[in-house]
Amino acid sequence: MTAPPTTANAATTEAGHSSVEERLDRMESRWALRDLVSNYCHGVDKHDIDLFMSIWHDDAVWRIGPPFGDFHGAAEVRRALVDVIWPAWRETHHWTTNLTLTFDGTDAADGVCDVNCNGATPDDVMQVVSATYTDRFERRAGRWAIARRDVVIHYFSAVPGVDLAPPAE
Amino acid sequence: MTAPPTTANAATTEAGHSSVEERLDRMESRWALRDLVSNYCHGVDKHDIDLFMSIWHDDAVWRIGPPFGDFHGAAEVRRALVDVIWPAWRETHHWTTNLTLTFDGTDAADGVCDVNCNGATPDDVMQVVSATYTDRFERRAGRWAIARRDVVIHYFSAVPGVDLAPPAE
Amino acid sequence: MTAPPTTANAATTEAGHSSVEERLDRMESRWALRDLVSNYCHGVDKHDIDLFMSIWHDDAVWRIGPPFGDFHGAAEVRRALVDVIWPAWRETHHWTTNLTLTFDGTDAADGVCDVNCNGATPDDVMQVVSATYTDRFERRAGRWAIARRDVVIHYFSAVPGVDLAPPAE
Repeated sequence: MTAPPTTANAATTEAGHSSVEERLDRMESRWALRDLVSNYCHGVDKHDIDLFMSIWHDDAVWRIGPPFGDFHGAAEVRRALVDVIWPAWRETHHWTTNLTLTFDGTDAADGVCDVNCNGATPDDVMQVVSATYTDRFERRAGRWAIARRDVVIHYFSAVPGVDLAPPAE
Repeated sequence: MTAPPTTANAATTEAGHSSVEERLDRMESRWALRDLVSNYCHGVDKHDIDLFMSIWHDDAVWRIGPPFGDFHGAAEVRRALVDVIWPAWRETHHWTTNLTLTFDGTDAADGVCDVNCNGATPDDVMQVVSATYTDRFERRAGRWAIARRDVVIHYFSAVPGVDLAPPAE
Repeated sequence: MTAPPTTANAATTEAGHSSVEERLDRMESRWALRDLVSNYCHGVDKHDIDLFMSIWHDDAVWRIGPPFGDFHGAAEVRRALVDVIWPAWRETHHWTTNLTLTFDGTDAADGVCDVNCNGATPDDVMQVVSATYTDRFERRAGRWAIARRDVVIHYFSAVPGVDLAPPAE
């Protein structure tokens, strides 16, 4: 049985031959990468374009695939959110879990996480989406950001008969 | 483009001018704050009042807003769970994700996280809830706890035709 | 009010009397244990048997209970996934959250986390599952893995009328 790279275990691979500085930096990087993944959701769902753009490198690639397409560079990434994603939804709620990270030196890492997304389209139909994000993270000039996010959508389906609405005041 | 405070990146802001002790303490604090957010869910869903009360400071404020109200101080917070929330539900399942933390010195932090909650009301109707929690965490006498939790409920909706039930024995 | 063990707060319990090495090791262990919990989901959902098997000790026990049963040792655990779980589902999507850890020395820990699982059975009916995993993690020869996972399924229910499908190309 050959274990794939994602089975790497933080405690066995990082403690052995690293300095205190390296070990602190690795864990601080883990927190920074979690923040990127979380802020993707906060940026999209809360319509915070500045927060959303802060997670990407200038030359980032965002490959959503069907039905939305692929986007290259910060300008296209921004346009994708503002002109494509937001108009396609009345509201979205992304919940990201299961993030695992495989480091490639001190300034790059590959990540895999899963997202459960509930939302509603502009015609008020509840939608449920399941997807996996495969990310390339890079630290440039001391700043971690996403260099590439590949999206695989497992399902994207309507839930008839549910009226998503906040509680009455 | 002005980045909001929540874009702060752990690796860039914390490593530069901090001692090993400060960096360890910051990350241990991050774990402690994650535990508070998780134990809110465990306490509510598993009807563990002691665990639930352990996450709050004595003067904590829990602002749920409609339809449940706002609660000030540990006694009211306890009453809200026991006399308001629990009777309103037959069962709840809170899944918290996307936690981001912005520290304000060493002993206070602001947090934002999202929750997906499925459950059933006492009349056996499945409900789905999406909400965002904005938290003020404070460390007092060495103990991190929640000083204030503000809840924004995005939707709170019935899902007709689903009978939530465990598998048959 | 007596706080249960799971209320233990990382920042108050770990910083006081521990060396830098012990504190680094504890946090690296936390990341390793998160990876185990995440890789369970990735292994099951992405049909990656090697990744899935990498999270268990050879003598691991996986107590799912009804409707699937209990499994003892790596060979049974593998068989349970390949011969029981995978055939029972057309697709699964596990999202684990709320992980809390209580350490028992440096090489063992108890964990509690919750999972929200959406999927479809082979007859194309959407199913929603809520469960809690109670885990015993042990580090043996420097490798953290699961020694025992107990599953409590809160509900396992069909959602009529939803056709889980990816977007059209």
